[in-house]
Amino acid sequence: MTRALVTGASGFIGRHSLAALVERGYEVHAVARGAGTVPATVGVTAHACDLFDDRAMAALVERVHPTHLLHFAWYAVPGRFWTAPENLDWVAASLRLVRTFAAAGGRRVVIAGSCAEYDWSHATLSEIATPLAPRTLYGTAKDALRRCLEQAAPSLGLSWAWGRIFFVYGPHEPLGRLISSLLDDLLAGRRAAVTAGTQLRDFMHAEDVARAFVATLDSAVEGSLNIASGEAVAVREVVARLGTLTGRSTLIDFGARPTPADEPPCLAADIPTLLDTVGFTPRYGLANGLERTVEWWRGSRPT
Amino acid sequence: MTRALVTGASGFIGRHSLAALVERGYEVHAVARGAGTVPATVGVTAHACDLFDDRAMAALVERVHPTHLLHFAWYAVPGRFWTAPENLDWVAASLRLVRTFAAAGGRRVVIAGSCAEYDWSHATLSEIATPLAPRTLYGTAKDALRRCLEQAAPSLGLSWAWGRIFFVYGPHEPLGRLISSLLDDLLAGRRAAVTAGTQLRDFMHAEDVARAFVATLDSAVEGSLNIASGEAVAVREVVARLGTLTGRSTLIDFGARPTPADEPPCLAADIPTLLDTVGFTPRYGLANGLERTVEWWRGSRPT
Repeated sequence: MTRALVTGASGFIGRHSLAALVERGYEVHAVARGAGTVPATVGVTAHACDLFDDRAMAALVERVHPTHLLHFAWYAVPGRFWTAPENLDWVAASLRLVRTFAAAGGRRVVIAGSCAEYDWSHATLSEIATPLAPRTLYGTAKDALRRCLEQAAPSLGLSWAWGRIFFVYGPHEPLGRLISSLLDDLLAGRRAAVTAGTQLRDFMHAEDVARAFVATLDSAVEGSLNIASGEAVAVREVVARLGTLTGRSTLIDFGARPTPADEPPCLAADIPTLLDTVGFTPRYGLANGLERTVEWWRGSRPT
Repeated sequence: MTRALVTGASGFIGRHSLAALVERGYEVHAVARGAGTVPATVGVTAHACDLFDDRAMAALVERVHPTHLLHFAWYAVPGRFWTAPENLDWVAASLRLVRTFAAAGGRRVVIAGSCAEYDWSHATLSEIATPLAPRTLYGTAKDALRRCLEQAAPSLGLSWAWGRIFFVYGPHEPLGRLISSLLDDLLAGRRAAVTAGTQLRDFMHAEDVARAFVATLDSAVEGSLNIASGEAVAVREVVARLGTLTGRSTLIDFGARPTPADEPPCLAADIPTLLDTVGFTPRYGLANGLERTVEWWRGSRPT
């Protein structure tokens, strides 16, 4: 039997992983600070646990006795997460979780990393070739955790993979991020001030990100891989599409916000491992992904 | 008032830091797992605390309310420490300690790093120029902790330094390391099988290492620096001196152990920051340092 423990199971990405794990035959145990925040999913047992509480975490791992660990939980408050000291707490909690999981007989772990680990002076970020040189505490913390995991995995007897997430959109995106804030403005009829949007980014629907993680967990891939669509598009194009989909294009004020001087012009993702070794196929392209997101946003926005 | 909290205060290096801190006018609080293992030192308050126990650690920091933190505690079982999973626990415990210290108003932290963080394909290890590329879990764990500290220090409001230790000898060296095992053999009249000893290393007396850390803590130096003598000598020379000092040269069998294939021929330390900015002067050279070590070993060896 394969039993998967999923952390951050009520989060923007984690919540989409639950059904995908059930589909692949895992017994699924979903952890969030409050069990009630885990989306009700057939075949999934929800658990409430504060992962900063060592004893509670160890008791949970002991009880569930997972063979697989999918670790999404992290500090993710929009804007603040780049520099928040809570990043250190998550490095510590993640190391203890992995140690406890391994000691309890866990076999395979997959953890959510970030494109922020890379040196952003490169335009195409390759899991094989691009140097790692995070600029932010968030990127540094993820990078430090991965370095530890990579070096410790053999002596812990763990198979492991590390998925570097790029730019994610979709249902349940927290407010305060580009697409969520834009949709919130447009659907409320407010003018949306955005940058010129010439920078290129790799966007992926949250459900596909989650499914890619589940496919990776279910594979034998070892090491770091990019979790992304493989296609970089101009932010401007995404914003314009959302204007069209909402019928509120006229509310968008391109260039009303200056592009920050240190904003990299292009962060494209190379995804050979995800495509060829994991063999992942996304469910959404940008067009239908954004369409579904707008639909969800219309339905869920408080009026 | 400056109040220093010292972790690993009963350890090989930490124990030597206590009197040096008192001399510089610090109110000194020394932590070890058992308070009874902290060497009795005038002006030092000993505390028993398991640093893996978050609540106990937080209560201690709250009680002592230190302005300065000198963090030596780590997993150090000879031979095993290079690959032991306990290295992960110490990354986690150290991050939590630093966070708690900062939150309680702590101002300056100095942590014991290691020359094992460097790329050992370089012969001279420079804190300014040598790339960091640890080969072992121990080196990786120290490197990961430092990366986090470096990036987080500004938002934590901490002044910080990171001292990279090289090869240390002296009183209280745990058995199972080169010099301690050699002296144990020689003084017991046992034949000592050693390598040819052609590799060059930087040796420093534990008391000087501790004093260099205290001087660094008491300075305004920020960032990483080597804590070493600045002089690399052949291991063979150190071993031969110990043979002469014990009068047991004939027991030493050079070349009876093969030199491991991956043993770097030279690990010399460049120490500009320690010399010029900290302004540290060692108390021991190799000759009198080894002499004192042999004296101590004669006096303390169980007969």
